[in-house]
Amino acid sequence: MATVNDILEFVETLAPREMKMDWDNVGLLCGGKNRPVTKILVALDPFEHVCKEAADWGAELIVTHHPLIFSAPREVTDETSVGRSIQLLCANGISAINAHTNLDCAPGGVNEKLAQVLGLEDVEVIGRENLIRCGNTQATLPEFLSHIKKTLGCQGLRYVDGGKPVSKVAVGGGSCASALMEVYDAGCDTFVTADVKYNQFWDAKELGINLIDAGHFQTENPIVPVLTEKIQAAFPEIQVKVAESHADCMKFY
Amino acid sequence: MATVNDILEFVETLAPREMKMDWDNVGLLCGGKNRPVTKILVALDPFEHVCKEAADWGAELIVTHHPLIFSAPREVTDETSVGRSIQLLCANGISAINAHTNLDCAPGGVNEKLAQVLGLEDVEVIGRENLIRCGNTQATLPEFLSHIKKTLGCQGLRYVDGGKPVSKVAVGGGSCASALMEVYDAGCDTFVTADVKYNQFWDAKELGINLIDAGHFQTENPIVPVLTEKIQAAFPEIQVKVAESHADCMKFY
Amino acid sequence: MATVNDILEFVETLAPREMKMDWDNVGLLCGGKNRPVTKILVALDPFEHVCKEAADWGAELIVTHHPLIFSAPREVTDETSVGRSIQLLCANGISAINAHTNLDCAPGGVNEKLAQVLGLEDVEVIGRENLIRCGNTQATLPEFLSHIKKTLGCQGLRYVDGGKPVSKVAVGGGSCASALMEVYDAGCDTFVTADVKYNQFWDAKELGINLIDAGHFQTENPIVPVLTEKIQAAFPEIQVKVAESHADCMKFY
Amino acid sequence: MATVNDILEFVETLAPREMKMDWDNVGLLCGGKNRPVTKILVALDPFEHVCKEAADWGAELIVTHHPLIFSAPREVTDETSVGRSIQLLCANGISAINAHTNLDCAPGGVNEKLAQVLGLEDVEVIGRENLIRCGNTQATLPEFLSHIKKTLGCQGLRYVDGGKPVSKVAVGGGSCASALMEVYDAGCDTFVTADVKYNQFWDAKELGINLIDAGHFQTENPIVPVLTEKIQAAFPEIQVKVAESHADCMKFY
Amino acid sequence: MATVNDILEFVETLAPREMKMDWDNVGLLCGGKNRPVTKILVALDPFEHVCKEAADWGAELIVTHHPLIFSAPREVTDETSVGRSIQLLCANGISAINAHTNLDCAPGGVNEKLAQVLGLEDVEVIGRENLIRCGNTQATLPEFLSHIKKTLGCQGLRYVDGGKPVSKVAVGGGSCASALMEVYDAGCDTFVTADVKYNQFWDAKELGINLIDAGHFQTENPIVPVLTEKIQAAFPEIQVKVAESHADCMKFY
Amino acid sequence: MATVNDILEFVETLAPREMKMDWDNVGLLCGGKNRPVTKILVALDPFEHVCKEAADWGAELIVTHHPLIFSAPREVTDETSVGRSIQLLCANGISAINAHTNLDCAPGGVNEKLAQVLGLEDVEVIGRENLIRCGNTQATLPEFLSHIKKTLGCQGLRYVDGGKPVSKVAVGGGSCASALMEVYDAGCDTFVTADVKYNQFWDAKELGINLIDAGHFQTENPIVPVLTEKIQAAFPEIQVKVAESHADCMKFY
Repeated sequence: MATVNDILEFVETLAPREMKMDWDNVGLLCGGKNRPVTKILVALDPFEHVCKEAADWGAELIVTHHPLIFSAPREVTDETSVGRSIQLLCANGISAINAHTNLDCAPGGVNEKLAQVLGLEDVEVIGRENLIRCGNTQATLPEFLSHIKKTLGCQGLRYVDGGKPVSKVAVGGGSCASALMEVYDAGCDTFVTADVKYNQFWDAKELGINLIDAGHFQTENPIVPVLTEKIQAAFPEIQVKVAESHADCMKFY
Repeated sequence: MATVNDILEFVETLAPREMKMDWDNVGLLCGGKNRPVTKILVALDPFEHVCKEAADWGAELIVTHHPLIFSAPREVTDETSVGRSIQLLCANGISAINAHTNLDCAPGGVNEKLAQVLGLEDVEVIGRENLIRCGNTQATLPEFLSHIKKTLGCQGLRYVDGGKPVSKVAVGGGSCASALMEVYDAGCDTFVTADVKYNQFWDAKELGINLIDAGHFQTENPIVPVLTEKIQAAFPEIQVKVAESHADCMKFY
Repeated sequence: MATVNDILEFVETLAPREMKMDWDNVGLLCGGKNRPVTKILVALDPFEHVCKEAADWGAELIVTHHPLIFSAPREVTDETSVGRSIQLLCANGISAINAHTNLDCAPGGVNEKLAQVLGLEDVEVIGRENLIRCGNTQATLPEFLSHIKKTLGCQGLRYVDGGKPVSKVAVGGGSCASALMEVYDAGCDTFVTADVKYNQFWDAKELGINLIDAGHFQTENPIVPVLTEKIQAAFPEIQVKVAESHADCMKFY
Repeated sequence: MATVNDILEFVETLAPREMKMDWDNVGLLCGGKNRPVTKILVALDPFEHVCKEAADWGAELIVTHHPLIFSAPREVTDETSVGRSIQLLCANGISAINAHTNLDCAPGGVNEKLAQVLGLEDVEVIGRENLIRCGNTQATLPEFLSHIKKTLGCQGLRYVDGGKPVSKVAVGGGSCASALMEVYDAGCDTFVTADVKYNQFWDAKELGINLIDAGHFQTENPIVPVLTEKIQAAFPEIQVKVAESHADCMKFY
Repeated sequence: MATVNDILEFVETLAPREMKMDWDNVGLLCGGKNRPVTKILVALDPFEHVCKEAADWGAELIVTHHPLIFSAPREVTDETSVGRSIQLLCANGISAINAHTNLDCAPGGVNEKLAQVLGLEDVEVIGRENLIRCGNTQATLPEFLSHIKKTLGCQGLRYVDGGKPVSKVAVGGGSCASALMEVYDAGCDTFVTADVKYNQFWDAKELGINLIDAGHFQTENPIVPVLTEKIQAAFPEIQVKVAESHADCMKFY
Repeated sequence: MATVNDILEFVETLAPREMKMDWDNVGLLCGGKNRPVTKILVALDPFEHVCKEAADWGAELIVTHHPLIFSAPREVTDETSVGRSIQLLCANGISAINAHTNLDCAPGGVNEKLAQVLGLEDVEVIGRENLIRCGNTQATLPEFLSHIKKTLGCQGLRYVDGGKPVSKVAVGGGSCASALMEVYDAGCDTFVTADVKYNQFWDAKELGINLIDAGHFQTENPIVPVLTEKIQAAFPEIQVKVAESHADCMKFY
């Protein structure tokens, strides 16, 4: 029977550990390598409700993008979100593995999937960390905003108009706005990312770049069904599914 | 005739220098204390177009909330936003003073004005840094969202529903979401701030707090006319006005 | 019914949190404050076999001297000792509280109990950190070594002969040999502690101090039954007992 | 018409940017790359009076050895020397470029020019940083002191007599006395530099090295006419001249 | 006549300087390279009584394993052990050289000698730092404990029983217990080292490794006669001997 | 008979240890407190030739201003100046005590003596560290330069003309030029110190301060006979004298 370690090794063929950022925490963060696996729940985040769904369904493993443990905890208690998640997993014998910045950077990973969903062509890697992807399309900014909203299923977008039509587009799922100068140096006119701050919108305005915040969840979640299918294909005897309880908690008004 | 130093000393009666955070940069950041002043332009930010407006109008001084210099520059060139602003100011003999976190914290400052505009009652200071204000109101969350949008003139809002009606509201203009635990410890059910990131929305959801991102510009800009009026009242012989060229560059779609 | 928090608060009347060293980790390190408690297992360490005994007995709480978590873990897996302990506790809904350096320093704590067991008189606090105790006795070194071995139940002792009879004795349970200069400055001729290293034996020799390594477990474990009794007396309705599975793993040959 | 960037690129063929020390600040430190240049003022330092001379003469560019900005400023005001210089430059649209430690180290740069002026033969590079030059000559110490004074135009010299005739001489313009051990290891008997401190004179005495402080200005300024001529030769259509207002402010009594 | 430098260079053929750890201090730590040598005293440590023996015997050089100076002293006085040793050496014109972690790691050094004395076969290097040696033998744990005690001349041993017979043994003279995971990763069942702390015994127990503290002095001192003989063989005209005054100061009871 | 400790305690009544800078090293830096003293050599520095003079004269103690050990040494060998001094002292049983920044700051110490020698009136302490003294006099700058040269016995001076007559003079023996802004803030027009660097001369020029480098030795050495006399007066039975072998090694040409 497949073990947690078998899944871990397969996931790290998709998202090699060497591709992760130095500060990141990836791999097996809870449970044990030798435990048998019959059901895997896949989700963007290992939040409490996802752990609960895994337990209710009888999964022995969750596979997520974001890590269960980011800043190492000095206690594991009901008072913190990570403490509740760890307790739920341990109480139900569930292991947790994740691929984070290694999956962002990997071929076929978060950012390549995002570029594909947005229909970019001639996609290539830019920037020092091999994180951002850029590719070509042709649209006015309003057309492209409408296209993003539809293809990513965003309730709303926040953006700054850089004053140019959309032609060479950079994408970085999640919080990548700090890569703005690299996007500019690569000659892009448009950058789709998330968690954009006030000064970053202004920086883009001054650089003449269309900067679009399409949501952290919406720009990264497209990888989740991809990851699910790949694991399912590699382990046909295991039940693998996307968590049903997890969606973005943030709304627009 | 009033000098730059006279204005600086007056502004620091409103926003005492001792109230600033350790990392902040406030006071006279460009020009000279002894220069005469006949026209003052007031704005949230000392961006290039604001400096241009000041020069075109013939102002000798700009007064802003955000500092002209945040991370100290190793060069002053056309290639950076701060370099262009400094060159414009120096080329036109314009001084620049600002009150940033000292104005956030001060009685009658950014956060107290924000609480007032939102109609909160029994407003008090919370948190370690005397930064956040909280006060009372009674509304459903949709009612309160509508109220914020109208009173602050927001094009859109981003929020998470904490599952409670709005009763005890904390406000922190600009990027204050890292104060979420202090807001929770103070017993608030609702927190209005800006630049909120993905994980912070989830933290609020798990704590059961309504967390509302009402925009960095929209939550801080109410202080600008207040500051303008106070300076005008103290220096009736000087022309003082709010910059006309400055508005939020970020849009919703 | 008493909760975990009730026990925590009681333990911290015995070993006030303010007495802990800056680097230490004490208090509730696993579980939840509001959970009811009917059985408490007390032990020097929260090692895997102690957690197992607690689970087998049906305890909802373990109280230990050493912390469950010392260096904050980046994962909770079968591969580390702390990972196995946390998983066992969470799987069985067991909370874990501890009092470490606060209990070392506290009146009636680890070091005062050690001084009492060794029969020292006129015991007082010495050193910067209020950690070490010293008191008087009269013996030759061989007599005192024999006395320690018998009263603490040591299989063996390691020591250096400082060349003086035993008269003024300092005690520091566990790894306190770095306090040697403080012991010297206080005028002691003999120091009982544990985990003594090669250079520390030589330092003592050169200072003319009898330095005795009586074992980490043997010098600290006397507090365990004391703590057990005090908790039992305060919570007569709860079953409180010392772990039966825990003894020093180190042997002499 | 030539631009600031053309001059910058030419200067960096003389003093390659890769040769600078890590802590140094070189290149375009004020103004803009695309601005046209018709007049260039060259000087050792970008002090206020040099900026004033450039403005009065109508120069669009100053080229200096020392950087305009060394420790990055948190404000640009009349109260600091660097603030006054930046304001003068910006008010007159003058750009500033510099080559500092890259020019010290470069072939044909500060230290090679110094060696040449002093008449050293068989000049070679010594030391870890490729900064110091050494070469041969034959003189008594008094003869060599007289020679330095005359060739560099020093009003006075400070020196320690290492007890040897002058034969193998190291030179490091400006503050290079911390390279004394490297000079010693290279087998030199004499070291000409500047800004020498009390302990450094004693260190040289104990090592038996003649250490001569010939002045920071006097040991570095020989590069200024060289740099001027090279720029002039490369850009014959531009007016290039050495600043007339700049000389050493320090006198001997 | 041979000089201190001749001995130093010979010792560093046995224990190359490049093999030392970054934090270590080795080589000539007292005296002068050019001084003639007719008598050399060799010992594990440069303690005061060893320096005294060297002076009484008329040695001009001591060669030790541990460094005379470990943490650099701010004073050289009677009040510290290192101060007394330095004063004794200087007062008698004695130089001091040492080979510490370079000798631990070197072929034929401390750890290879320890492996040889214990009769290990097929000895190889393990671990990141090329420090630990491992080799094969066949024994029950009690047999091996008895063997260690006899061959190393230990008065006593401290150990934890890992539950396995002795087959693949790692050795690290002195304080090497922090290499426990490397020993485990290399597949060893038994580890002989010294200065083992409470938690390290428990770590070994949980990993199932027999961990044996055989004494810092006893695990390192076998190199002393080896070093003595090698120096004697290389410099037959010099008197070289092992210090008679030095033995372990620590006793078992 | 008086001991080293008696002299140490007396010196620290003149220059209390609490007055020293945090980074400084003062007190007994070589030898032993309990040793008897019949001859004391006093000098500005504990250089090798001073130690030699002490040994030749039969002194058991040297008292200096500068510390024997500044940056703690990792070896004590012939190859460094401090190594040679320590070996000479230890070989001759000579102790070394010093008072450095505590003597600079103390009433009646280095800087007060300097102010007195220069004939300043109404002397007071200025600056954060209670280091600099300032007082009044009336002279043209040339007159004052001549006066300094004569009273301090300087072969030469280096100075910048701040453009003002000499009226309020700050003095700081040794390397105090980094206190220039404090001197300016105190309203002084003239500053006498030593080891002045190129940029510090220019800073003074821009501030309009006459900055005079009168030599490290010449500005501090006046305290040496004072210290000698005070020790002699307190210990009439001991022979106390100023070192004859020590004078500034630096010359002007």
